[in-house]
Amino acid sequence: MTTTQLISEIQKKQSFLCIGLDVDLNKIPQHLLKEEDPIFAFNKAVIDATHHLCVAYKPNTAFYEAYGIKGWKALEKTIKYLNDKHPEIFTIADAKRGDIGNTSTMYAKAFFEDLAFDSVTVAPYMGKDSVEPFLAFENKHTILLALTSNQGAFDFQTKTVDGKELYKQVLETSKTWKNAHNLMYVVGATKAEYLADIRKIIPDSFLLVPGVGAQGGNLQEVCKYGMNTNVSLLINSSRGIIYASNGEDFAQVAASKAKELQEEMQVILTQ
Amino acid sequence: MTTTQLISEIQKKQSFLCIGLDVDLNKIPQHLLKEEDPIFAFNKAVIDATHHLCVAYKPNTAFYEAYGIKGWKALEKTIKYLNDKHPEIFTIADAKRGDIGNTSTMYAKAFFEDLAFDSVTVAPYMGKDSVEPFLAFENKHTILLALTSNQGAFDFQTKTVDGKELYKQVLETSKTWKNAHNLMYVVGATKAEYLADIRKIIPDSFLLVPGVGAQGGNLQEVCKYGMNTNVSLLINSSRGIIYASNGEDFAQVAASKAKELQEEMQVILTQ
Repeated sequence: MTTTQLISEIQKKQSFLCIGLDVDLNKIPQHLLKEEDPIFAFNKAVIDATHHLCVAYKPNTAFYEAYGIKGWKALEKTIKYLNDKHPEIFTIADAKRGDIGNTSTMYAKAFFEDLAFDSVTVAPYMGKDSVEPFLAFENKHTILLALTSNQGAFDFQTKTVDGKELYKQVLETSKTWKNAHNLMYVVGATKAEYLADIRKIIPDSFLLVPGVGAQGGNLQEVCKYGMNTNVSLLINSSRGIIYASNGEDFAQVAASKAKELQEEMQVILTQ
Repeated sequence: MTTTQLISEIQKKQSFLCIGLDVDLNKIPQHLLKEEDPIFAFNKAVIDATHHLCVAYKPNTAFYEAYGIKGWKALEKTIKYLNDKHPEIFTIADAKRGDIGNTSTMYAKAFFEDLAFDSVTVAPYMGKDSVEPFLAFENKHTILLALTSNQGAFDFQTKTVDGKELYKQVLETSKTWKNAHNLMYVVGATKAEYLADIRKIIPDSFLLVPGVGAQGGNLQEVCKYGMNTNVSLLINSSRGIIYASNGEDFAQVAASKAKELQEEMQVILTQ
């Protein structure tokens, strides 16, 4: 998917919501455990109930790997279902990968070609030659970790490197990499005030913003500092939507939680 | 496996060699493609031929994920084969994972419990709460990326943060984390002269050293600067061993390449 198509979907749906599909078998409604593939059954129900309210879905690969072959199959079925039924939806493999060149190419093939995700999250620690293999895929998007939403972000990311915080060095350096136009960035919502500075460095790039809701981030604040004329934000919510109910009504409750966020976004978009 | 057991194996085998099982179907002997599971067939042949010469095996997960379910099954079979037949061998999932707390716990379970690896490689960018969930597993080992062997290591890892290179900050900060005794570190062999400084910060920790051979690192140099009284080094070689021949004799040639390194190590250990 191109960014132009994504921007157009955001306008059409009046939403820049991304729903995190982080399926934990201990948290999903227990009646689903009777299904042949409970993980996929859960995802399918959530997708069927919410696809008109969001522009992106983001399965975090950890939750699938934790269930081995069964989990990997559920991930394959989920992305195939999305690509078949809702090709207009932007898909994110939240995998936080990154390795030396030839190995990153293997990861890129796994997520962009075999699984056919539109994007994958990548960690910057290993530098240019660990990220460029992902960037080589045209109309695929590499979402680089810049400033994450967890407490540990302050261990290294906000430390000063040659007069500038590490996450800003990551933003600036990454702009010089080959095919940098295929980059997006993860910026945590719990640090909304940082977004003004971030926009000075990368005014045009899409930002994937986790941490709204369960982790305490504020949507209004994020939009105030992070939105540009193309919106260029994807606000992720996982637990606040998918685990809002663990009864038989879980999908409807997920839809109503997604609807609340979509309506809040619509107000912001029409301001 | 405990580090005491690993140290004892190193003394017994007079080897601190780790063999990287990075299986690329385009590079393995083509007669194996007729096998039901070519990836596992390749790994089994390499393991059968080399297990007495090395103390560790390190499959890089990228090479398995690139083949989807088929790849994941081959990884499961490989680790099961190692744990069943050679429980004395230290196993490393080279996965370079790392995510917010509850998600890192899912990754830790995937690699330490379900797949039953002894260790997993983890990226430090997201800080303390992304790594401590791995460290919570006793007698399992979290191998933190410090200084990697690729060119991109110079993008961020060697930049100065508060008066000290980032990789040194990572080493020092990680020592303060809960269950830090379960940490090991990745330090690339292409920068052997850095090892003297690294040993000042972490004199006792095991170091996993990639980059000997194909990437140009020198074994003698690495040992000169990086070895301590317990050795505490695992020198990884992947392509230089497993792809030394792509004929029907690949396993024997792999064994002879491994033997060369083991003999070089034996000389160093008896100096």
